[in-house]
Amino acid sequence: MNTLKKTVFTAALASAVIATTVVADGHADKAAADAVKARHAQMQMVGYHIGVLGSVAKGDSPYDSAVVDAAAKNLAALAAMEHATLWIEGTEQGTVEGSRAKPEIWSDAAGFKAKFGDLETAALAMVGAADQAAVGAGIGAIGGTCKACHEVYRGPRN
Amino acid sequence: MNTLKKTVFTAALASAVIATTVVADGHADKAAADAVKARHAQMQMVGYHIGVLGSVAKGDSPYDSAVVDAAAKNLAALAAMEHATLWIEGTEQGTVEGSRAKPEIWSDAAGFKAKFGDLETAALAMVGAADQAAVGAGIGAIGGTCKACHEVYRGPRN
Repeated sequence: MNTLKKTVFTAALASAVIATTVVADGHADKAAADAVKARHAQMQMVGYHIGVLGSVAKGDSPYDSAVVDAAAKNLAALAAMEHATLWIEGTEQGTVEGSRAKPEIWSDAAGFKAKFGDLETAALAMVGAADQAAVGAGIGAIGGTCKACHEVYRGPRN
Repeated sequence: MNTLKKTVFTAALASAVIATTVVADGHADKAAADAVKARHAQMQMVGYHIGVLGSVAKGDSPYDSAVVDAAAKNLAALAAMEHATLWIEGTEQGTVEGSRAKPEIWSDAAGFKAKFGDLETAALAMVGAADQAAVGAGIGAIGGTCKACHEVYRGPRN
C-alpha cells in the first residue's frame, strides 16, 4: 500500500471501529432501558398482588381462599425472580431513565437478594390464610419487607 | 309507619342500595382495570426475557450461561403464575380498556392454562442451554408457544 491508500484504509478502519462501538453502546443502552422496564413491570405485579391481599384484609373484597392463595404464590414467585437478567450492571439511578436502583444493589448483591428472600418468605406464609383476619395479620409482614428493602436499596423519586 | 313515612323510608333505602351498587361497581371496575394492567406487566416481562434469549440466539449479546438460565427460569415462573388473580372474570376485550383477552379464556380455562404450561415446559427446556446454538435451537419452541396461545386466546389489536 502507498501512503494515501494506507491513510484511507486506516480512516475506514477507524470509522468501522467507531461505528461498531456506537452500535454496541446503542445495544447496551437498549438492554439497560429494557431491564429497567422489566423491573418496573415486576414491581407493578408485586404491587398489584399486595393490593389484592390488602383489599381482602380491609374487607373491600370478599375473602376467597383461591384468590388469596394465588396472590400469595404469585408474590412469592415474583420475589424469587432470578436477578441476572433484571438487575444488570449499569442500570442504577442516574444512568437509565426511571431507575431508582441504588449502587448498593450491586455492591451488596447478597444483602439485596436476601431482602427479596424476606418478601418470598412473608408471601409464602400467607398461603393458606384461612379468613380475612389471617390475611390482615400477614399483610403487615409483607409490607414490612417492601419497606425494609426500599429504605436501603431504592433511591429518591426521579 | 304512615304512607308518607313509608315512601320516604323506601326512597332512602333505594338510594342506599343504589349508592352501594355504584361503590361496588367502582371497586369492580378498578379491580378489573388493575388485573389487566398486571397481565400486561406479566406479558412485558415475558417479552423482555424472550428478548434476552433472542439476543443471545442472534449473537447480539454474548452467550452467558447465568443470564440464559436466569431468563429461562424467570420465563417459566411467569408462565406458571396463578390465574385466579390475573385472569379474573369480566376483563375480556371490550369490557376493560387495553384488554385483548378473548372470552375463550374463561369458557375454556383448562385449555388456556395448558397453553401457559407449554410455555413453562419450553422455558424449562432452555435451562442449561450450553451455547449460542442451543439457545437458538430452543427459542423457536418458546416462540411457538406464544403464537399458539395468541392465535386462540388473544383478540385483535384495540
